[in-house]
Amino acid sequence: MVPTITAFEKSPDRGKGLARDMRVRWALEEVGQAYRTRLLSFEAMKEPAHRFLNPFGQIPTYEEGDLVLFESGAIVLHIAERHTSLLPALLPADENARSRAIAWMFAALNTLEPPIFEHALARILEHGETWYEARRTILEERIHKRLKELAEHLGSADWLDGDFSAGDLLMVTVLQRLKGTGLLDIHAPLLAYIDRGEARPAYQRAFKAQWAVFEAASGQR
Amino acid sequence: MVPTITAFEKSPDRGKGLARDMRVRWALEEVGQAYRTRLLSFEAMKEPAHRFLNPFGQIPTYEEGDLVLFESGAIVLHIAERHTSLLPALLPADENARSRAIAWMFAALNTLEPPIFEHALARILEHGETWYEARRTILEERIHKRLKELAEHLGSADWLDGDFSAGDLLMVTVLQRLKGTGLLDIHAPLLAYIDRGEARPAYQRAFKAQWAVFEAASGQR
Repeated sequence: MVPTITAFEKSPDRGKGLARDMRVRWALEEVGQAYRTRLLSFEAMKEPAHRFLNPFGQIPTYEEGDLVLFESGAIVLHIAERHTSLLPALLPADENARSRAIAWMFAALNTLEPPIFEHALARILEHGETWYEARRTILEERIHKRLKELAEHLGSADWLDGDFSAGDLLMVTVLQRLKGTGLLDIHAPLLAYIDRGEARPAYQRAFKAQWAVFEAASGQR
Repeated sequence: MVPTITAFEKSPDRGKGLARDMRVRWALEEVGQAYRTRLLSFEAMKEPAHRFLNPFGQIPTYEEGDLVLFESGAIVLHIAERHTSLLPALLPADENARSRAIAWMFAALNTLEPPIFEHALARILEHGETWYEARRTILEERIHKRLKELAEHLGSADWLDGDFSAGDLLMVTVLQRLKGTGLLDIHAPLLAYIDRGEARPAYQRAFKAQWAVFEAASGQR
C-alpha cells in the first residue's frame, strides 16, 4: 500500500529542506518505499479536515490504509519498524541495539531540538526586540553545551551507535537547522556528520523531491 | 532481570515528582516491574562514569543486563514494548493503535513539552531580566494554543486514543509542569485528565517512591 504524506504547499524555508516532511521523505527513500504527497496551504492546515489527521494542525501526516499518524518522529519510527527485514534497515535487528537507536531518536527530538528550535524561533519572532541579543546569548550557550556533548560522544565514529539508523536520520535533520548560524563552526565533527547524512543517496532523492515542490510553487506566483 | 534507573539524589523540584525519573518509575509500576534506583548528585551526573550511560549527563538512565538506555521517552517505550503481553499494557496489541499511541508519546515530548519546558526555564533563568514579562506573554500564548488543541482533541474522552497508554503517561507528566502556573485553569478537561492520571495506583506508588527519596535527602541536610 502506497502511503500519503502531507507537506507545505510553499515551504517557509524556501526549499532548504528544513520542514519536517523532509524527515519522513528521507526515511521512505532509505527503505525504498514509494509515497504520494498531498500539499497544504497554511490555511488548509488549520481546517477541520486536516486537524482530523493532526489535532495540532501541522505537517507532516502519514496515511496508509486505515492508519493515520502525525509527529515526524513517530512516522519515521513507524516506517523503520515496518521495514526491519531490509538491509540496510533504519533500525538494527538486535533488540538492545534497536532500543539504543530509538534512544537517539528521542535525544534528537527532546534534548537537541528544543534549544535549536527556540533559537530559530527567536530569530523570527524576537529579532526586533530590545532583549534579542541577550536572549540569543543564553540560547547559544545552551546549544553549544549540547553540541559539545554530542561531538564528544560521536568522536571519530561515522554514526551515533554502529550503523546509520533512524536516530542518525533525525539527528542530522535537527542539526541542519543550525547551518548558516555559524554555531556549528567550532564543532567540526558534527559538520562532517551532517555531510555524511546529506551524501546518502536516499537523502539526495528526498531533498530533490521537496525542492521540486518549492520550485513549482515559486513558479506559480 | 531487575533494571536499575538513576534519579536525582536531591530533586530540584522538592519532591513534586516533576523530574524525568518519575515517568520511568510510573511506567515500571504500570507493568508491575520491580526496579532499583541509583541516586546521583549534580556533580556525579557530569562525571565520565555517568556520561558513559548518558552523553548529556542527565537522569534518568536505565540499565538492564547489557542494555544501557537514556532519554525518558525511549525508556518508557522500551518498558512498554517488553511488557506487551500484560493486560492492561502500556501499548495496545493492535498494530495501528500501537503506532498511534507512540505518536502521542512524540506529541507529548516534541509538540507540548518544548514551550512548557521553556516557560519553566524562563521562570528560573530570566526571572530578573527586564524582558521577562514580555517573553512570558509570548510563551504563554504558544502554550495556550497547544493546550486548546489538546483539549479539543480529548473532548469528553478519558484518554487520548482509546485505553490509557504510554502516550497518556508522558502527556500527563508534561502537563503536570504547568500546575501552579494558572495556565491550566481555562482548560478544565486537561485538569481532569491530569487528575485521572494521578489517580492511577501505579502513579501513586511511583510518586511515593520519589517522595521518599526527597524526604530522606532533606532529613540528612
